[in-house]
Amino acid sequence: MDLDSYFEDFTRRDWQMLDEASVRIAVIGLGRFARERALPAIRDAQFCEATVLVSGSPQKVADLPGTVAIDRVIDYEAYHAGEAVEAYDAVYIATPPAFHLEYAETAADLGKDILCEKPLAATLEDAERMVDVAAEVVLMTAYRLRTEPAIRRLREAIRDGVIGTPIQIHSGFSTQVLDYAGPDSWRLDPDIAGGGALIDLGVYPLNTSRFLLGVDPVAVSAETTSSGPPFDRIDEHVAVQLIFPDGATASCTASFNAHPDSRLHVLGTDGQLWLRFPFGGHVSQEIVIERGETHARYTGPPVDEVSEEFDYFAHCSRTETKCECDGEEGLTDLRIIEAAYTAAETGTRVDL
Amino acid sequence: MDLDSYFEDFTRRDWQMLDEASVRIAVIGLGRFARERALPAIRDAQFCEATVLVSGSPQKVADLPGTVAIDRVIDYEAYHAGEAVEAYDAVYIATPPAFHLEYAETAADLGKDILCEKPLAATLEDAERMVDVAAEVVLMTAYRLRTEPAIRRLREAIRDGVIGTPIQIHSGFSTQVLDYAGPDSWRLDPDIAGGGALIDLGVYPLNTSRFLLGVDPVAVSAETTSSGPPFDRIDEHVAVQLIFPDGATASCTASFNAHPDSRLHVLGTDGQLWLRFPFGGHVSQEIVIERGETHARYTGPPVDEVSEEFDYFAHCSRTETKCECDGEEGLTDLRIIEAAYTAAETGTRVDL
Repeated sequence: MDLDSYFEDFTRRDWQMLDEASVRIAVIGLGRFARERALPAIRDAQFCEATVLVSGSPQKVADLPGTVAIDRVIDYEAYHAGEAVEAYDAVYIATPPAFHLEYAETAADLGKDILCEKPLAATLEDAERMVDVAAEVVLMTAYRLRTEPAIRRLREAIRDGVIGTPIQIHSGFSTQVLDYAGPDSWRLDPDIAGGGALIDLGVYPLNTSRFLLGVDPVAVSAETTSSGPPFDRIDEHVAVQLIFPDGATASCTASFNAHPDSRLHVLGTDGQLWLRFPFGGHVSQEIVIERGETHARYTGPPVDEVSEEFDYFAHCSRTETKCECDGEEGLTDLRIIEAAYTAAETGTRVDL
Repeated sequence: MDLDSYFEDFTRRDWQMLDEASVRIAVIGLGRFARERALPAIRDAQFCEATVLVSGSPQKVADLPGTVAIDRVIDYEAYHAGEAVEAYDAVYIATPPAFHLEYAETAADLGKDILCEKPLAATLEDAERMVDVAAEVVLMTAYRLRTEPAIRRLREAIRDGVIGTPIQIHSGFSTQVLDYAGPDSWRLDPDIAGGGALIDLGVYPLNTSRFLLGVDPVAVSAETTSSGPPFDRIDEHVAVQLIFPDGATASCTASFNAHPDSRLHVLGTDGQLWLRFPFGGHVSQEIVIERGETHARYTGPPVDEVSEEFDYFAHCSRTETKCECDGEEGLTDLRIIEAAYTAAETGTRVDL
């Protein structure tokens, strides 16, 4: 088994079938991630362009860097009324989670494909309804890790048995939410965010574990904790244990109030692998992989994982192939997250 | 806060008060660890020497390397009868766990101090009885990590708040037990071992987490799994979640059938630290520690952690100071392990 073969063509887009496409995207919501990551990523992407902005804040629009050129800016009311519908082919929903559904419903009504930020919704009910209303369009959950080259190469290696049978995953994602979002952030409001550290950050190790193992967990247990205001309404810290059908486990943690970092380690019967800083928006692409006595290190070239994500979405939109991280994917994570919150509250393992 | 100051005098024995001592030790049981690690470690230790061997196997005695010189060899019956009692001051019990108690009882009757291998016993009841019968002698549980320099330095740094408040520990220990012990090993027999991967390997991340945080968990949840013979009577793989009083968690895993390795990561509010390969008997002493923007790496000189352990035991024996990892320490871990097995069986969080 030649380890090198997995990492030689590090950034290959194994999903790509088209050479050309141009999907015009309406960006809905101009929060920090949309302004600082998504809009530049769309600008640099191969298969799409941002043609319309939907925002309630003229100030945020005015503050956009000059390198981001947009044809049309409309407000939320105009969006719902179908204004500028001829100017875009698909939407990217970047509002806080509780508002995802209403924009998705309008998009589906207008026949537009949808890329929706994670988590898919603030509640399981909303997520289920979104999958229903979007049945006739492409609905993709914005898990940018799913098309991130390092994660994709690792999935291929695991699937081929490079580390044997996966046994135990350890993964975590921590930030200092007050530093970048402040104490008044919607991220601390469970009615808008759907929860705390688990739904906002923990969804990364959770979804990535499922993706790498290629299977869904059958049960979950969890511990949540909060030190008090401003974290008193949500889980400030969370530790989740996913149990997979064959007995593999994933020990996933997340925190809104810890040293910012992220980590991923997968142990198998015949080897193991690490990825440093997988979830923070810029994967280090420094992979350490061991198989028996072989210890290897691979580093991929820098790639904007958000551009990859938008290109994949545009590609799904144009080719009408089944999207690997569709609405069902986001819905499955919300089912697991809801079960994890129940597990934490009741102190029991919850079957899925 | 000067990180360097913790690691400058890396191998300092902060516990040492004596300059000289000579404690004569009877080694009970000549399994692989006793032959290959303990006897050479005692030979090289500063404060003790091995003067008596207690073994039922003349072949194992004959196979000892010439560099290990012993005055007396007696069998188990002779030991219980008090033979050679004048030739040793203390005992080191290195038999399988189910037999620890009987040798400890004799030692206590003879007024000998006891260093007992981990786990302290195969059952909680035996461990409780051992603590009772050894009330008048020094009883130390052989957690060699407790006097291992890297672990000790990290404990000091954590205690002083170098990484802020500890939030989440991830730690694991895995071996291929069939490779070094074979399918007929007592480690696969719960009546002799007391359990499987958790009690034999998981006790390392468990005890080390407690030691580093300086506090005991208040609850535990766990998942155990086995793929069938020869692991059908025990936990082949285990994932434990410890919950500490202030909400910190330790996600600890162990496996008898995975790529051999061990890992320790502690995340705090203000920083984090890693130690590679902490539990395999030779700590790499490669510490990575981060605090805010500071990223530092420290490497200590090679130290035989087993010699450190025996010197600490001899030192406790001579100074009659309270042993930091006494019988109660081993007993506490067995309480946690028993609760973890209950948690795994019932699918509930078990309070401690």
